Amino acid sequence: MALLGAIEAGGTKFILAVCDENFNIIDRTVVPTEDGPTTLAKVTTYFDQFDNIDAIGVAAFGPVDLNPQSKTYGYVLDTPKPGWAGFDFLGYLKNWRDIPYYWTTDVNGSAWAEYRHGANSEVKSLVYLTVGTGVGAGIIVNGQILSGFGHPEAGHIIISKNPKDHYLGHCPFHHDRCLEGVASGPAMEDRWQQSAKELADEHMAWEIEADYLAQAAMTYTTILRPDKIVFGGGVPHREVLLPLIRKRFAELMAGYLATPDLEDYLVPVANGDNAGILGCFYLAKSAMTRA
Amino acid sequence: MALLGAIEAGGTKFILAVCDENFNIIDRTVVPTEDGPTTLAKVTTYFDQFDNIDAIGVAAFGPVDLNPQSKTYGYVLDTPKPGWAGFDFLGYLKNWRDIPYYWTTDVNGSAWAEYRHGANSEVKSLVYLTVGTGVGAGIIVNGQILSGFGHPEAGHIIISKNPKDHYLGHCPFHHDRCLEGVASGPAMEDRWQQSAKELADEHMAWEIEADYLAQAAMTYTTILRPDKIVFGGGVPHREVLLPLIRKRFAELMAGYLATPDLEDYLVPVANGDNAGILGCFYLAKSAMTRA
Repeated sequence: MALLGAIEAGGTKFILAVCDENFNIIDRTVVPTEDGPTTLAKVTTYFDQFDNIDAIGVAAFGPVDLNPQSKTYGYVLDTPKPGWAGFDFLGYLKNWRDIPYYWTTDVNGSAWAEYRHGANSEVKSLVYLTVGTGVGAGIIVNGQILSGFGHPEAGHIIISKNPKDHYLGHCPFHHDRCLEGVASGPAMEDRWQQSAKELADEHMAWEIEADYLAQAAMTYTTILRPDKIVFGGGVPHREVLLPLIRKRFAELMAGYLATPDLEDYLVPVANGDNAGILGCFYLAKSAMTRA
Repeated sequence: MALLGAIEAGGTKFILAVCDENFNIIDRTVVPTEDGPTTLAKVTTYFDQFDNIDAIGVAAFGPVDLNPQSKTYGYVLDTPKPGWAGFDFLGYLKNWRDIPYYWTTDVNGSAWAEYRHGANSEVKSLVYLTVGTGVGAGIIVNGQILSGFGHPEAGHIIISKNPKDHYLGHCPFHHDRCLEGVASGPAMEDRWQQSAKELADEHMAWEIEADYLAQAAMTYTTILRPDKIVFGGGVPHREVLLPLIRKRFAELMAGYLATPDLEDYLVPVANGDNAGILGCFYLAKSAMTRA
């Protein structure tokens, strides 16, 4: 029986899984993220248990080189993470077993799962926005993962500072100028001296967070005109947030531009915690077809 | 001899032109924009002079319906412009002469000209940003004009208000929240009580304008990772502006993300005033192949 593999390579943990050809999960494990070679040794040891894996989808924390024409295709690029900058992630895997791999970013993997598995067939373009330790987006345009000179880092778009917000920002590059700087989980915790989980539903934190995420939705909408914007990651888990985002989005847009009904347009993840590995499975399948 | 036609349909004037199969302009005229039927009657009278036009590219002011599956494909959508809302622009033309048409927005036409004629072959993704009476962008992603639930209205992205700028904004929907509201020609004139043309190079207006356009470039860069951002329209004609945009962009990005060298990345239009009609010719040609 043909199997597909998934490597959801996060900054704190790697989720590894194997599914059958109908995308049913057969096995799943988690290993902590250490340096590149140590972590990948554990990854390959895990997959050594399965002889008949046809392809593996890899969704990795960034920045990574996704350009097949580049000399460093498959590498992790410049990152402050110890033991990862310049590591040949994909090369390590190919050296271990020469099968087809689909190599992309973590957010692209989740976006692909939401596109292929979470949304209906009328959705052609989709933004998957994750708000957690960092803020990032995977973008599908007319059925293709968007990539250009590099992969998007759409958590670093410009935002307008909320007048009630005096926080100086958490992005080491852009401080309070960009979305990640003011809206990530660590930004919330640093600003309010409580984690997002601890903040009460009535706390003004949520109104401010909703303002920033609605601004992001407006910017993505005007540039990309997607059929759906999906909110994932730890912060949007809070049920108080999405209705506030929809309300603020409607205020900000002020009737400009047609969008799908906001209940269908600004939505929570459909695939929950499995979005990442599901995306890897679908991408692994397409790597097989491509190979 | 086969000919191609161009209709660059702007809010104040229509530029009409005819070229040979090598894209050499054979004839060109300008008609003022009146209501839909009156203007289109003049358009068809002009093209009546030429019997052998194989196809016409139409780049129209928006919003227009670009979705071929839609019942109002080819129509001008809701607009305050008298005599245009709900006008079947493309239907009028097809009724006049049933040849292939390429129907798109004005900024998409110019973006296509910059992509096909202005940039080298290594450019796969490009943003054409026009700053004039309005602010809009045509976006090419991997050789395709980007479109989704509708066409982009990327002049209406969120910006962060410059602390020195106390202007309340010119966008009837978003006031000073969006790029068009603070950076269009009319916004400049309203803010400074002088037109952009009259403002001296040393006026602080240019520093503020550069801040907003650099913010836009940062947002487009983080979402789209294009190979090039081209600045067109009346306002960027001023030579003082582009160096200020590059300087401010570098400050805002703060070393985050690789981009092409800024001299090659943030650039003026290559095709000048002919960008619009050139784009129409190239699109007319592709409409022929498609038909």
